[in-house]
Amino acid sequence: MSKNLTKRSEDYSKWYNELVVKADLAENSAVRGCMVIKPYGFAIWEKMQAELDKMFKATGHQNAYFPLFVPKSLFEAEEKNAEGFAKECAVVTHYRLQNDPDNPGKLRVDPEAKLEEELVVRPTSEAIIWNTYKGWIQSYRDLPILINQWANVVRWEMRTRLFLRTAEFLWQEGHTAHATMAEAITETEQMNTVYATFVENFMAIPVIKGVKTESERFAGALDTHCIEALMQDGKALQAGTSHFLGQNFAKAFDVKFTNNEGKQDYVWATSWGVSTRLMGALIMTHSDDKGLVLPPNLAPNQVVIVPIYKTEEQHNIIRNVVNTLKQKLEDNGVSVKFDDRDTQRPGAKFAQHELQGVPLRIAIGPKDIENGTIELARRDNLTKEVVDIEGIENHIPQLLETIQKELFQKAYDFREEHTTKVDTFDEFKTVLETKTGFISAHWDGTAETENKIKELTKATIRCIPHNSPIEDGLCIYTGKPSRQRVLFAKAY
Amino acid sequence: MSKNLTKRSEDYSKWYNELVVKADLAENSAVRGCMVIKPYGFAIWEKMQAELDKMFKATGHQNAYFPLFVPKSLFEAEEKNAEGFAKECAVVTHYRLQNDPDNPGKLRVDPEAKLEEELVVRPTSEAIIWNTYKGWIQSYRDLPILINQWANVVRWEMRTRLFLRTAEFLWQEGHTAHATMAEAITETEQMNTVYATFVENFMAIPVIKGVKTESERFAGALDTHCIEALMQDGKALQAGTSHFLGQNFAKAFDVKFTNNEGKQDYVWATSWGVSTRLMGALIMTHSDDKGLVLPPNLAPNQVVIVPIYKTEEQHNIIRNVVNTLKQKLEDNGVSVKFDDRDTQRPGAKFAQHELQGVPLRIAIGPKDIENGTIELARRDNLTKEVVDIEGIENHIPQLLETIQKELFQKAYDFREEHTTKVDTFDEFKTVLETKTGFISAHWDGTAETENKIKELTKATIRCIPHNSPIEDGLCIYTGKPSRQRVLFAKAY
Repeated sequence: MSKNLTKRSEDYSKWYNELVVKADLAENSAVRGCMVIKPYGFAIWEKMQAELDKMFKATGHQNAYFPLFVPKSLFEAEEKNAEGFAKECAVVTHYRLQNDPDNPGKLRVDPEAKLEEELVVRPTSEAIIWNTYKGWIQSYRDLPILINQWANVVRWEMRTRLFLRTAEFLWQEGHTAHATMAEAITETEQMNTVYATFVENFMAIPVIKGVKTESERFAGALDTHCIEALMQDGKALQAGTSHFLGQNFAKAFDVKFTNNEGKQDYVWATSWGVSTRLMGALIMTHSDDKGLVLPPNLAPNQVVIVPIYKTEEQHNIIRNVVNTLKQKLEDNGVSVKFDDRDTQRPGAKFAQHELQGVPLRIAIGPKDIENGTIELARRDNLTKEVVDIEGIENHIPQLLETIQKELFQKAYDFREEHTTKVDTFDEFKTVLETKTGFISAHWDGTAETENKIKELTKATIRCIPHNSPIEDGLCIYTGKPSRQRVLFAKAY
Repeated sequence: MSKNLTKRSEDYSKWYNELVVKADLAENSAVRGCMVIKPYGFAIWEKMQAELDKMFKATGHQNAYFPLFVPKSLFEAEEKNAEGFAKECAVVTHYRLQNDPDNPGKLRVDPEAKLEEELVVRPTSEAIIWNTYKGWIQSYRDLPILINQWANVVRWEMRTRLFLRTAEFLWQEGHTAHATMAEAITETEQMNTVYATFVENFMAIPVIKGVKTESERFAGALDTHCIEALMQDGKALQAGTSHFLGQNFAKAFDVKFTNNEGKQDYVWATSWGVSTRLMGALIMTHSDDKGLVLPPNLAPNQVVIVPIYKTEEQHNIIRNVVNTLKQKLEDNGVSVKFDDRDTQRPGAKFAQHELQGVPLRIAIGPKDIENGTIELARRDNLTKEVVDIEGIENHIPQLLETIQKELFQKAYDFREEHTTKVDTFDEFKTVLETKTGFISAHWDGTAETENKIKELTKATIRCIPHNSPIEDGLCIYTGKPSRQRVLFAKAY
C-alpha cells in the first residue's frame, strides 16, 4: 500500500477510505459490513464518549443496560418502528451448533435447537426498553425516567463504508419517559442542543439545528430533531438525532401512569442518539491530503515530541530535556507523547504523526539544545517555527485553544460559502452540479414534491432549520406557496 | 412485594435474588436469560470499569472494538475453543423480517434473506480477533499487541441467575500477542495479578490466586490462571481468569511473524477477562439481611444526607447547612447525595439507603442545628453516633478508608475460618456438609479422580494456589501420592 493518500480533489471517496485505514482508525473485518475499530480510532471515540457522558449526566441522565436481543413479538409491537427496521434485521433463530455429520471438523446449526420465538439483534432499543419501563412506571412520582445506554446495534446494510454506514455500529441511545407532552418536547430539544454543543465545541464542526420532514423522521417518532453538518465535498451528514415519540411506544406497550389528579394517561417518550458515524464527520470535516487533522479537544495525543540526534550522548541530553518539558506540559493539562522509538527515523515519525493528525509536533535536535529552542509544527495549517523552549509550557495550551477555534472557524466559513439561497429549480440544479453544499429553498410542504426532487437530483431535505425565518415564498419545484425555507443537500 | 428481605440463614439463594431486585441493581427481562442492569447497578459497574480501565492502560494496554458476530468458519477454526462454546451459541441465520402473510400485523423471517454463512454471536472473541491480528503482524516489530475490549457477549445458558449466570453479559476481554512464550506467560500472570489487586483493593474481596486444573481450563488455553473468592454461604466464585493460549490460535489462524533472527514462528497469545459476574461477588461477599453493603471505593454515593424537619423554616436552615457540608465533603473527594425529596419520609429514605448499601448516612434535624452536631450512621456495622459537624469533612474520608479496610478484613477472616485442611475423604465430606468453604487437600493429579470427587460431592477443584507449598501427601480419594494441596469447594 502506497504511503501517500489519494488527493481529495481526485477522488474524495477513495481519499476517505484510504485515510481511515492508513491512519489506523478502523478497517473492514471478515464479517460482512462490520468494522474493526483500531486502538487509535477507538481512543478518539473514547474521548467523545467521555465528554458526551459527562454532558448527559450533567443534564440528569443515568446509564443503564438493556438486552441485545428483542423478541420478535416485542419488535413488532410498535408498527411503524417495526416496519422501518424489519428490512435490516439480523435474526437469531438457533441457540446451539453441533458437529456436522457430513463435514468432519465442521459445525452446523443444531436443528433441534430452534428458538420458539426468533430474536432480533437490536437495531434500536425502544421496544425492549418500553416493555421494561412498563414495570417501572405506575404513578407520576416514577417520572421522569432519564436513561442513556452505550451499546452496539445492528442494521443490516447492503452498501457499507467504515464509520459512515456499517452493519454493526457503536452508539448511545437515550430513552426518556415523561408525564407531560411539554416536558418530553423540552427534553427532545434539550438533547439536540447538547449534541450541537458537543459537536461544535469538541469536534469543531458547525451544525445546523432543525427538524426533519415527515418522510425523514425516525420510524415511530412524531418529530425528529437533528443536527446537520457539511462535509468538504459539499455533502451533508446527519450528526445526531433526537426524537419526540409522543405516546406511540407507551400505547404499543401499554405503559400508563396515574397523574397528580389521579387520572390514568399514557406516558410521553423521547429517544436520542449519536454513533460512531461521528468519526466519519470528524474525518471529513477537517482532514486534508496529508491525512487526519484532529481538533485538540479530541486528540488522544495533543503534542508529540520527536528527538533528533546522531550520537547516544546527544540522545541522552535531549531525552532529559524532553522529559522535563513533557512533565511541565502534562502539569498544564496537555497530553503528550514522547516518540522515542529507535526503530523509526525522524522523517518516518513526522509522516506518521501527520497522517494521524496530532495537533502539534515538537522536534528537538542538538542545535536546539545549544540555542534553548524547539521546532514547533502545527498540523492544521502545516506551519512551523523555531521558538524558545522557555515558557513553551504556557504557550502550548493557548495555541491548542487557538487551533481548536480556527478549525471550527475554517469549517464554519466553508459551510457559509457552500450554503446558497435559490428561488428556482434551475438554480437549484446548477448549484448541486457546481458548488454543491446546503441549498436553502422554498418547498410546498408535501412528501410528493420532496420525493420528486430527490428522484431528479438525489438531494434531500436535511432539515427545516430552527432559525429559518417565516417568509412568503414559492416552492422551487411546484410554485405553490411556502412560508419557510428548508435546507436541501445531497447527503451521506 | 414485601419490603423486607428473606434472611440469608433461611434461604441464601432467595435472599440474593430479592436483594438484586429490591436494591434496584438488575432485573430479568422479556428475553430468556438476559438481564436489565438498572441505573443503580450500572453505576457500580461503571466504577468498576473506570478503575479496571485505568489499570489496563497503566500496564500498557489500549482499547479497541471487534465485531459482535463471528462467521461460523472462523468460529470453528480453533477446534477446542469451538467445541467448548458450540453448545451455547446464539446463531444469526437471517438478515431480514417481512410481513407474515398468514398473520396480519405480524412479522416473520424472510426465507429469501438467509445468510450464506451463519454468524455466531460472540461468546468470546479469540476467533474474530486472531483472524484480524493475522493482518497486523508480520515481524517482531509489530509485537507485542496489547489490546482490551469492553463488550457484550452471549452464552446460551439454561439456568440463569442475575449477574452470576446470564445469557448475555458485559465484560472486558484482553487479547495480547507476543513474540515469545516467556513474555506471554508473564502477561498472563501480570493480568491475573491486576485482577487480584482490583478485587482486593476496590471490591474489598480477598482472593486466592492460582491455576486451574486441565478440566477447568478455558477451551483452547494451555493454562488458565484465576482468582477465586469465597461467598458468605461457603461457596466459591471464580472472579476473573487469565489464559495462556500458547500458539493455538496463531496456528488456527496462521499468524506467523519474523523474529529478530529472521526466522518465522507462530505468535504467542493470552486472553483475560472479568465480567458483570463481579457484581454477584460484590453482593454475596458483603451484604446482610438488611440489604446491600458497598465498599466505599465502589459506592456511587459514599455519603447520603437526610434532612429531618417539621417546618419549612427548619427545612431552609438545614438545607443551608447541608449544602455547605456537601461542598466541603466533595472538595475532599467524597461523593455525596443530598436526599431532599419531599415525596418520602426520613424513615423511608433510611430504609432505601440501607437497602442500597450507601456506606455512610448523615441525618440532620433541628436539635443538631442547635448543638452543631449530626447523626452519622455506618452501613457496614449498623452503628451510629452523634458527632460535631465541625471538622466532619476531614473525619469522613478517613472513616471511609476504615470501612473499606474493615470490610476486607471481615471477608478475609470469614474466608480463613472457612478454609479447612483435610487429609481424608471422610473429613472432606464432613466439612462440605457442615462448615463448607474452601478445602485444602491432596489430589493425585488425574482428571478421573477430580471428576469422581465432583460426582460424589459436587465440589470441584477451584485452583492450584500459587502459594501452595510443595509437600508430600496422599490423595484424599485414591491414596496415591501427591506433592501439593489444591483448593476444593462447591462453586457458583
